[in-house]
Amino acid sequence: MTVVNTPDQLPSAPSPALDTAPEGGHSKRALLGLDAPLQLDSGALLGPLTVAYETYGTLNATKSNAVLVCHALTGDQYVASINPVTGKPGWWTGLIGPGQAVDTDRFFVICANVLGGCMGTTGPKDLNPNSCKPFGLDFPVITIADMVRAQAMLIDHLGIDSLFCVIGGSMGGMQVLQWAAAYPQRVFAAVPIATAARHSAQNIAFHEVGRQAIMADPEWREGRYLDQGTRPRAGLAVARMAAHITYLSEPALHRKFGRRLQARDRLGFSFDADFQVESYLRYQGSSFVERFDANSYLYITRAMDYFDLAQPHDGVLSAAFKGTKTRFCVVSFTSDWLFPTPENRKIVHALNAVAANVSFVEIETDKGHDAFLLDEPEFNRTLTGFISSAWAARQKTMP
Amino acid sequence: MTVVNTPDQLPSAPSPALDTAPEGGHSKRALLGLDAPLQLDSGALLGPLTVAYETYGTLNATKSNAVLVCHALTGDQYVASINPVTGKPGWWTGLIGPGQAVDTDRFFVICANVLGGCMGTTGPKDLNPNSCKPFGLDFPVITIADMVRAQAMLIDHLGIDSLFCVIGGSMGGMQVLQWAAAYPQRVFAAVPIATAARHSAQNIAFHEVGRQAIMADPEWREGRYLDQGTRPRAGLAVARMAAHITYLSEPALHRKFGRRLQARDRLGFSFDADFQVESYLRYQGSSFVERFDANSYLYITRAMDYFDLAQPHDGVLSAAFKGTKTRFCVVSFTSDWLFPTPENRKIVHALNAVAANVSFVEIETDKGHDAFLLDEPEFNRTLTGFISSAWAARQKTMP
Repeated sequence: MTVVNTPDQLPSAPSPALDTAPEGGHSKRALLGLDAPLQLDSGALLGPLTVAYETYGTLNATKSNAVLVCHALTGDQYVASINPVTGKPGWWTGLIGPGQAVDTDRFFVICANVLGGCMGTTGPKDLNPNSCKPFGLDFPVITIADMVRAQAMLIDHLGIDSLFCVIGGSMGGMQVLQWAAAYPQRVFAAVPIATAARHSAQNIAFHEVGRQAIMADPEWREGRYLDQGTRPRAGLAVARMAAHITYLSEPALHRKFGRRLQARDRLGFSFDADFQVESYLRYQGSSFVERFDANSYLYITRAMDYFDLAQPHDGVLSAAFKGTKTRFCVVSFTSDWLFPTPENRKIVHALNAVAANVSFVEIETDKGHDAFLLDEPEFNRTLTGFISSAWAARQKTMP
Repeated sequence: MTVVNTPDQLPSAPSPALDTAPEGGHSKRALLGLDAPLQLDSGALLGPLTVAYETYGTLNATKSNAVLVCHALTGDQYVASINPVTGKPGWWTGLIGPGQAVDTDRFFVICANVLGGCMGTTGPKDLNPNSCKPFGLDFPVITIADMVRAQAMLIDHLGIDSLFCVIGGSMGGMQVLQWAAAYPQRVFAAVPIATAARHSAQNIAFHEVGRQAIMADPEWREGRYLDQGTRPRAGLAVARMAAHITYLSEPALHRKFGRRLQARDRLGFSFDADFQVESYLRYQGSSFVERFDANSYLYITRAMDYFDLAQPHDGVLSAAFKGTKTRFCVVSFTSDWLFPTPENRKIVHALNAVAANVSFVEIETDKGHDAFLLDEPEFNRTLTGFISSAWAARQKTMP
């Protein structure tokens, strides 16, 4: 598939019909791939393309203080500032900001919406220059490596040769690993959090349930819902509900909700939300629909399913990191059953096998996979310590 | 709600419009509640009602050798004989039959389709005598205790005073616990397997996802799909897919499928089933739709959600078993994350607290919750040993 936009048919044009318009309107935008399109893993060419991003802090004179933050499946570039769609604070304000673990008084922090996303970076809801309609399923299937290629184009565009640190959790962690493997010279330090070097069969299965829920919704219209003025709300909400359970842990659900009943002191003997956990899940589903594009959900889950960093190396993960000089800090959480500690430990073992500089911390928490987004003091201390010492080392290497 | 059928409006009449007609056509049927309707936990009255059941072996002269098998959420009465809908062997032929752990040369085995089911026992697809249309959501919400009440009516109907053993896994195990708590004099031995004395918040959440998937399907028609000639196939398939993941374990999925690709040696860069695990899940969804009624799925999952054996005793589970003389064998499986060992151990602790006769076995397996349906030699040996020794004890008590 070749999808090359001509400069007068730019995918940064406003998308039609998405009634909640999660356009990431306040973001900076870079128009990239004007000289040469992005070559995707599928063989398709995509370009020019728009990457929407936020920055915090100031790039120093030597351009040595840039930190790239990679977001998760349903995350976005608003890592440390108000999200204009939801009006909520950034998703990592506990870690990124003035005086925080990633101190924006010291570092220049960049966070870009991923390729295939729906917050301003080119994705399936943008106009296909060949048809002048939204791409829908004509958007090429993308991979984590493709997302990282688009980010590398952005970093080039910003004139940054080498990143001080790349950091991210979950799918963000996959991007961190891909950065370290694909651009070892450009990554001084890397923090993959609650992630895996390849998506497990169980995780592929959960993603497939979500995709089937979306595609079963007649309002999905084979992906052409934007042209046809519909939205697969019900299907996307079910997908989100199923996924949301996997982000939590049984102990966290038990602590938060247990079997407590919803605004009644007895069972309702109906299919209304009797239990608080049902009401909570329904809210998670319905609020997600207001901010996320269903086709983006298909494409991004597919990219995660396809991720297998060892595959090009005949299954030998360490080969992906051969000769690396990057400093790594791998973090997992005890109650995370989506990306459990053994998956993270495999990354550590592969790095050990090539004598990389790696530290590994497993944080004790009952909060499940979502712990990486929540206030976890030990996680915060781990990051603060690693970033400080890596920054000290970085400064020694500078002229 | 009062739903009392008059004898000339029997719910055993054939249901209309269910095109695959999972009617359990070969089963024995008992018409119960003719004298007095079944009083449900919701307050509704239901009756007369039909219970469809299978039996294996011969009831002895003293009626002391009856074993009641309780089936799980999507199970049925065909525990040890060919299922007429699927054409497949019974779901526990590895445990129940001549010379098996539950030896049908020695025992009279009874297995009934649960109340609310779709294999011949009265459920939401049967005719509502008040409207002469299928009940749909006019069927009263039922509980595990209601299912057990209907079974007790069947056992009365068969002239059996006391069951030698009640056995079941998952939701079947909930029924076993309910039998032991509600009818302690009628249960000599009880084998709850891979179950819990109350449904966890996480399990309620997974059920809610399944129900929302069904109810989001426009073909569900607010539960009136049988009248309207539709079927919520897509929604029910998604519900089954999500549930099916919870029946397995990550190691089992990894062993069975890993990241192996489906009939191709490379990624397809599409949303077709690329991975074998996706194809398997899709098959699980689509084949389930051929044999199960969507409204039954709603009612039975709701019954499980409502199950909390300690609730009537101010949360003190042991009080449910006070004074019990039943012999218990509680079984769990190491890789079962739906009904994990700690949930089963809570049952054991409650039984210990009332000095009950209880043995507890945790079986080492990577097969997940489904292990109770699969060939597990240690599980088989455990059951064989427990049943033999309980039968020896039973015979000593007989005149």
